[in-house]
Amino acid sequence: MIIDIHGHYTTSPEGLMAYRGSQVGQLNNPQKGRLNVSDDQIRDSVQGQIVGQKERGCDVTLFSPLAGGMGHHFGNELTSRYWAETCNELIHRVVTMFPQNFIGVCQLPQTPGISPANCIAELERCVNEFGFVACNLNPDPSGGYWTDPPITDRYWYPFYEKMVELDVPAMIHVSASCNPNFQYTGAHYINGDTTAIMQLIERPQMLKDFPTLRFVIPHGGGAVPYHWSRYRGIAHDMGRGELSDLLLKNVFFDSCVYYQPGMEVLLKAVGVDNVMFATEMIGAIRSKDPQTGDWYDNTKKFIDAIDWLTDADRQKLFEDNAKRVYPRVAAKLK
Amino acid sequence: MIIDIHGHYTTSPEGLMAYRGSQVGQLNNPQKGRLNVSDDQIRDSVQGQIVGQKERGCDVTLFSPLAGGMGHHFGNELTSRYWAETCNELIHRVVTMFPQNFIGVCQLPQTPGISPANCIAELERCVNEFGFVACNLNPDPSGGYWTDPPITDRYWYPFYEKMVELDVPAMIHVSASCNPNFQYTGAHYINGDTTAIMQLIERPQMLKDFPTLRFVIPHGGGAVPYHWSRYRGIAHDMGRGELSDLLLKNVFFDSCVYYQPGMEVLLKAVGVDNVMFATEMIGAIRSKDPQTGDWYDNTKKFIDAIDWLTDADRQKLFEDNAKRVYPRVAAKLK
Repeated sequence: MIIDIHGHYTTSPEGLMAYRGSQVGQLNNPQKGRLNVSDDQIRDSVQGQIVGQKERGCDVTLFSPLAGGMGHHFGNELTSRYWAETCNELIHRVVTMFPQNFIGVCQLPQTPGISPANCIAELERCVNEFGFVACNLNPDPSGGYWTDPPITDRYWYPFYEKMVELDVPAMIHVSASCNPNFQYTGAHYINGDTTAIMQLIERPQMLKDFPTLRFVIPHGGGAVPYHWSRYRGIAHDMGRGELSDLLLKNVFFDSCVYYQPGMEVLLKAVGVDNVMFATEMIGAIRSKDPQTGDWYDNTKKFIDAIDWLTDADRQKLFEDNAKRVYPRVAAKLK
Repeated sequence: MIIDIHGHYTTSPEGLMAYRGSQVGQLNNPQKGRLNVSDDQIRDSVQGQIVGQKERGCDVTLFSPLAGGMGHHFGNELTSRYWAETCNELIHRVVTMFPQNFIGVCQLPQTPGISPANCIAELERCVNEFGFVACNLNPDPSGGYWTDPPITDRYWYPFYEKMVELDVPAMIHVSASCNPNFQYTGAHYINGDTTAIMQLIERPQMLKDFPTLRFVIPHGGGAVPYHWSRYRGIAHDMGRGELSDLLLKNVFFDSCVYYQPGMEVLLKAVGVDNVMFATEMIGAIRSKDPQTGDWYDNTKKFIDAIDWLTDADRQKLFEDNAKRVYPRVAAKLK
């Protein structure tokens, strides 16, 4: 079985953006309102993902709302609550219609400066009522200005307590950037990944306080695996010991590295026990590489091409690690 | 000959920090004042770098003030002017005392919200009077809040005009981070590198307007070489054509990647014509790797170990590329 742990609903029907558009006029008085999206529209909208799964030999995708669309900077906490609820309800419809293809992961109603405890109710609803298996946690709800505390701060602890209780991991994933310095998929996303890992190295108390908490760092961990011994050295100089001992019980990486030599670095740096197959399909790049004639984001091909991986390694990368990091995936697939 | 293009004066005598300390009390009325550092103190302070050069077989280092110390967020433009002048004058003394070991690179008197045209006089002084060969340009003078325009904005053009006239490149290098989200050497530095490259991809008009301008991206280009085809794909989807055609006439990378597989990715991704040997020595990591018994930042060893590099490749990496990107280095070494 091949599980893709990183897919966003980037192809949602127009009704979803119309809903978002209606929020613009309600900034001081948000209303839940109603989403106008039909089952037929949903069915049409996910055909690209389903064809992509078949073409690439993938069985099931962990599917969450559009990351760039989370937009936690926009409006107030009610705006974010209604938007997250609506996006998650739409994912629930997708998952209910295509249970063989998709497993739900939720967006959270985060707002800059508002306690993440505010996200607990929606996480519980998505996990307990909808059967979702994880959440996407935005380390920068401001959208490129980084005004909230680091993810290691006690500010986040009430939410982590609920994650531990429900036994669900969080993918640490920023959203759109409002800062003209940071293009989103090439700068803000990758910087968010690098930043999150460095926060864990700098202030590791949080991992001691939550020894069973699990974070998934997307996009192959940003810059970190490429500079692995830079981070090992920084950790040593800070008195943190060996980096793998510090991080790898709690931190896992997806395989969204669209470059063969990069994929090899990822697997060498963090090892096959801490990487999970993922594509972001349909995601950051929508075209084929003219040098290979294949999709840029066909990451399975890069893993297939690594001759030093054993069959046991591949079993971990494609299936077993995901079932270990996301226990609710394992339960669902039984 | 082996040229290390990336060294900062991280070991400057205490008098320099005392000078900086005196600025704290003068925020509304900065004075140039006087630096109390003796020649003997300078001589003692650079012995670590000179020993390191010998141990690692390096001939000469492009040497600039402490990057984390530039602190452009602090005080006003006069604060930054006096601080940059003082730091550069100290580098000039080092270079004058040890002309075989060091070649000067200057800090700029940047200030958030103040036109980079304000830096022209100090660049001219350092190049024309002191014989410096390049500058460090901070893409985020705010220190982690990224409040100034991207480096592709016309805001920066007056300074680029002077760089072109003087034929000096800029290393794009952030300074300390005031934002608790960004540890400096592991997050802010690496994010700054990634961000700068993505700005060039997003808004390439600047490179067309300044076809001979040259930027050096430190720390092996942040995350970009690791994700090379992600950036190729983003560039394609934006209609920018092939990434190497877009960037590699103007953008060069140092070899400060402290990880053997990472170094190989760097050289495969951007090619041997666009990488220059560098260590950051004495820099981000001050210790030896317990796995190898060697310094984390002994990057020469990583290049030496790559068996697919030819002698001609090594000649480029260690010497020729630096002379091409920094024409004033070539003139100085004649």
